[in-house]
Amino acid sequence: MDFKILSEQYKNELLNKVVPFWENNSLDKEFGGYFTCLKRDGEVFDTDKFIWLQARQVWMFAKLYNEVEQKPEWLQIALDGAEFLQKYGHDGKLNWYFSLTREGKPLVQPYNIFSDCFATMAFGQLSKATGNDEFAAISKDTFQNILKRSDNPKGDYNKLVPGTRPLKGFSLPMILCNLALEIEHLLDPELVNSTVEKVLHEVMEVFYQPDSGLILENVNPDGSFSDSFEGRLLNPGHAIEAMWFIMDLSERLKRPELAQKAVDIALRTLKYGWDEKFGGIFYFLDIKGNPPQQLEWDQKLWWVHIETLITLIKGYALTGNEECLAWFEKVHDYSWAHFADAEYGEWYGYLNRQGEVLLPLKGGKWKGCFHVPRGMFQVWKTLEKLNEK
Amino acid sequence: MDFKILSEQYKNELLNKVVPFWENNSLDKEFGGYFTCLKRDGEVFDTDKFIWLQARQVWMFAKLYNEVEQKPEWLQIALDGAEFLQKYGHDGKLNWYFSLTREGKPLVQPYNIFSDCFATMAFGQLSKATGNDEFAAISKDTFQNILKRSDNPKGDYNKLVPGTRPLKGFSLPMILCNLALEIEHLLDPELVNSTVEKVLHEVMEVFYQPDSGLILENVNPDGSFSDSFEGRLLNPGHAIEAMWFIMDLSERLKRPELAQKAVDIALRTLKYGWDEKFGGIFYFLDIKGNPPQQLEWDQKLWWVHIETLITLIKGYALTGNEECLAWFEKVHDYSWAHFADAEYGEWYGYLNRQGEVLLPLKGGKWKGCFHVPRGMFQVWKTLEKLNEK
Repeated sequence: MDFKILSEQYKNELLNKVVPFWENNSLDKEFGGYFTCLKRDGEVFDTDKFIWLQARQVWMFAKLYNEVEQKPEWLQIALDGAEFLQKYGHDGKLNWYFSLTREGKPLVQPYNIFSDCFATMAFGQLSKATGNDEFAAISKDTFQNILKRSDNPKGDYNKLVPGTRPLKGFSLPMILCNLALEIEHLLDPELVNSTVEKVLHEVMEVFYQPDSGLILENVNPDGSFSDSFEGRLLNPGHAIEAMWFIMDLSERLKRPELAQKAVDIALRTLKYGWDEKFGGIFYFLDIKGNPPQQLEWDQKLWWVHIETLITLIKGYALTGNEECLAWFEKVHDYSWAHFADAEYGEWYGYLNRQGEVLLPLKGGKWKGCFHVPRGMFQVWKTLEKLNEK
Repeated sequence: MDFKILSEQYKNELLNKVVPFWENNSLDKEFGGYFTCLKRDGEVFDTDKFIWLQARQVWMFAKLYNEVEQKPEWLQIALDGAEFLQKYGHDGKLNWYFSLTREGKPLVQPYNIFSDCFATMAFGQLSKATGNDEFAAISKDTFQNILKRSDNPKGDYNKLVPGTRPLKGFSLPMILCNLALEIEHLLDPELVNSTVEKVLHEVMEVFYQPDSGLILENVNPDGSFSDSFEGRLLNPGHAIEAMWFIMDLSERLKRPELAQKAVDIALRTLKYGWDEKFGGIFYFLDIKGNPPQQLEWDQKLWWVHIETLITLIKGYALTGNEECLAWFEKVHDYSWAHFADAEYGEWYGYLNRQGEVLLPLKGGKWKGCFHVPRGMFQVWKTLEKLNEK
């Protein structure tokens, strides 16, 4: 494998195809913020603004500014989105809405704690780019809110009857693995340490099940298996994505054994989730082989494959495991053959099981300027380092 | 078309394949109520109890008892389910939970008003079978609760910010068209009349859009179009199902022009929703042709096709429209070729766009003993009447 050529492929896709797509099509110059519902060629088909995606795009452009090139236009795009978020994105107490109208009127209440997670990332990265204390404060205070809400993230909007089956979910500890490093520059080192130790334990010892060697999406409060739709659920892309967050922590904490364990889990999950018939990674599976409740279980999603590419190449860079490289090649081939679009920028998001485009969009309610450019950036940089070795 | 042979086919499937499947596999003899998560051959794969499906099965067996044959074992199955529902199904004020554990502990709060709708149907039908006043009272009181909650069905669990985009949904007026006739024997005639007039207006004049000739799932409070994901949504099966409720009302009210209009809407919707490439009716579409937010949009669902069969054959019986008969043949052929199972009873529920089985189950969280047997019954009886003409 020629790391130099490959690295150029990811860099070129990022800088010449993906970033320009969002620069050219997503900016709402009238009301601020970003359009994310974009057809194949970039045409806007819906103008609602989803906080997850607004915040992720602020983060992405601040990140490009911080780590690729200090282009003033990239910083300006991030600042424009941040201004819209500051004005309209939260309820006045940094509880971040789920969605807004184009003009910024709140549509859906702050029931979803991941809006807060992505706002934390966005303002944290932007505070790095600008040194602006207000951005830093928004990021820190929102992070504190998340920690406070972490035992019942949906609050009043939780439809579960308390006590009957009090499962806990993988998403929040997983994202905190990433978030703690993202805004480390803003936090008291003790808070970083205690948070990191707690979420590392959750991800690698509570949600990880030694019997199967897989990570479950939901477990009983004591970490045991719940034989229910939620308890049986596997989300291979989610577990594999978490493994590169763990690899980053492994480097930061200088604990190489963590990277080894993350590689083992990622490879096992990938083999389990791979569709031998049509290629690609399934979206959802039931660990007992029952029909999952998610009707979209067999679809092939962009983020699943892109996050897997990051995990595999980082896994190889950190451990030298050759299986990572072989699988990287396989997932790379599948992804570029099915998700990439030779004619227009950005990648397709949703394929059917057979690998055909299911929704001819480049952005929507859940897909914005995030997984594709972040993935291109991460893979490019990791390949570049491998080439320099 | 030989109505006699066809009628026998539906009757035989109902009485010899579908009803026995539920009799043999769904009864929880230990804790009461019904299992609905059943594999292809009837094996239970999950024991949670969903109020929609518990109530619908009570209704179905009471209906069979009332209208097919007064078999004591059918009544007993309905009574067993009703006892479980009375004990565990609601919060003490006839607000019906969404789901329970196998033992009857509440899992998901009464956020979903359709639990209440199906409980009303169940106890209404059972009061007919037994003359039991308590069942009648549960049905009537729950119906009053539904009317009270109808402006904000989700109550405290509504995640929408009030005022920004106050859409109203098609489901509730649609189901009330059916419910008002279902429990007419329990209601004050004035309440029946006022409810029926209100919901007829909603379905045929508010949600129905004269420009496109189609029914939208969500509209602005004044009935106008909302250019949003929810506002653009079409659910062809839902609209077509509503049209046989309207046909029943047309007969009951002796207003044949209603049946004519219902036939027009149903045929237009069916042509719009038919998949010319693979056959079958799409699950969701966007009226502007944009990508819908539902990833399962292109799947072929059992209830969509079965409800369509009912609408087409009733439409033919009431209006003599030959197009109804031609389309009935086409949808009949597709449904029996793809959903029916020659080896085990009950029909598959979920096919991919290509018509292949997507989930090899006969019952789940949303599929129980309802659409297949109700559809077989309705088509059988309508064909029988056509044969007698």
